[in-house]
Amino acid sequence: MKYCSTCGHPVEQKIPQGDNRHRYVCLSCDTIHYQNPRIVAGTVPIWDGRILLCRRAIEPRYGYWTLPAGFMENAETTIEAAARETREEALAEVNIEGLYSIIDVPHINQVHMFYRATLTDGQFGAGDESLETQLFDLNDIPWDELSFPTVRKTLELYLEDLKSEAFQVHVTDIRYPMPARK
Amino acid sequence: MKYCSTCGHPVEQKIPQGDNRHRYVCLSCDTIHYQNPRIVAGTVPIWDGRILLCRRAIEPRYGYWTLPAGFMENAETTIEAAARETREEALAEVNIEGLYSIIDVPHINQVHMFYRATLTDGQFGAGDESLETQLFDLNDIPWDELSFPTVRKTLELYLEDLKSEAFQVHVTDIRYPMPARK
Repeated sequence: MKYCSTCGHPVEQKIPQGDNRHRYVCLSCDTIHYQNPRIVAGTVPIWDGRILLCRRAIEPRYGYWTLPAGFMENAETTIEAAARETREEALAEVNIEGLYSIIDVPHINQVHMFYRATLTDGQFGAGDESLETQLFDLNDIPWDELSFPTVRKTLELYLEDLKSEAFQVHVTDIRYPMPARK
Repeated sequence: MKYCSTCGHPVEQKIPQGDNRHRYVCLSCDTIHYQNPRIVAGTVPIWDGRILLCRRAIEPRYGYWTLPAGFMENAETTIEAAARETREEALAEVNIEGLYSIIDVPHINQVHMFYRATLTDGQFGAGDESLETQLFDLNDIPWDELSFPTVRKTLELYLEDLKSEAFQVHVTDIRYPMPARK
């Protein structure tokens, strides 16, 4: 950020009065421009005991498999965002079953939230941001071709919980540098 | 938003290619300025069976009672944000016990997240944004002087769950116009 989005004058980083963090502050109109983490919302979409994954048609991680997910938009709820992303990326309508994972990713200022979901009618396809979509048997998850650590973590938790059929809400975080894989 | 924070030239609202929503786009450098919901993180801080509330020393809702909570910052986790806000507003250190409520507030582009917490040593006070802080017996919650609907909702859920000592994670939303109070 170099310029004030309110008046167009240059900004500088300083700690505003009564604050304890550096913010971008306009040198002309004194507007403080706060920056905050963004939410990525998505689903774990299930149909007939299998999980629907999307192969990414966009960077980053072009060609890798992901759970449908994306940035939450203004004026929607996290559930609406998760369902919308599933509709856009996998052309699938879902029933949201419950919150499943909340994974903080503080080094990129994101919070990823996945909801458990079931396809309403088993229909799906490839949206503009997907090369293809496919239902995967739980034994055939493409672990070496997954897109993001939060997708891997959510799938690992899901398969673990599936053994007991007890789906808790999981709150965890992924920090950089990543710990070695177990 | 009137000006591009990257180059200082005017922005206009239009739907970028491949998108389906209006965004602020720079007429000069083509930067797309996305706007997304913000997270408000806080705690339900318990000590000796009572709940610690803060009376707000700032607008909005100056003088009303609130759970300690505030905007999540970049580079922190939701748990860190909730604990930090409790430290800043109530001068209290807490042990986070678990996620409790996630309340979407789409008409103001916010997601409120409250964690159950216990004070580590029973110490508390009034931070810069609080006029005073006080432990309330569960029968003495100042229902008519609460600050925000998400605080009210979280406290209502908490008291309800307390009857069975079974604290679930609650996902709900508050929309405007508000439904009539029960």
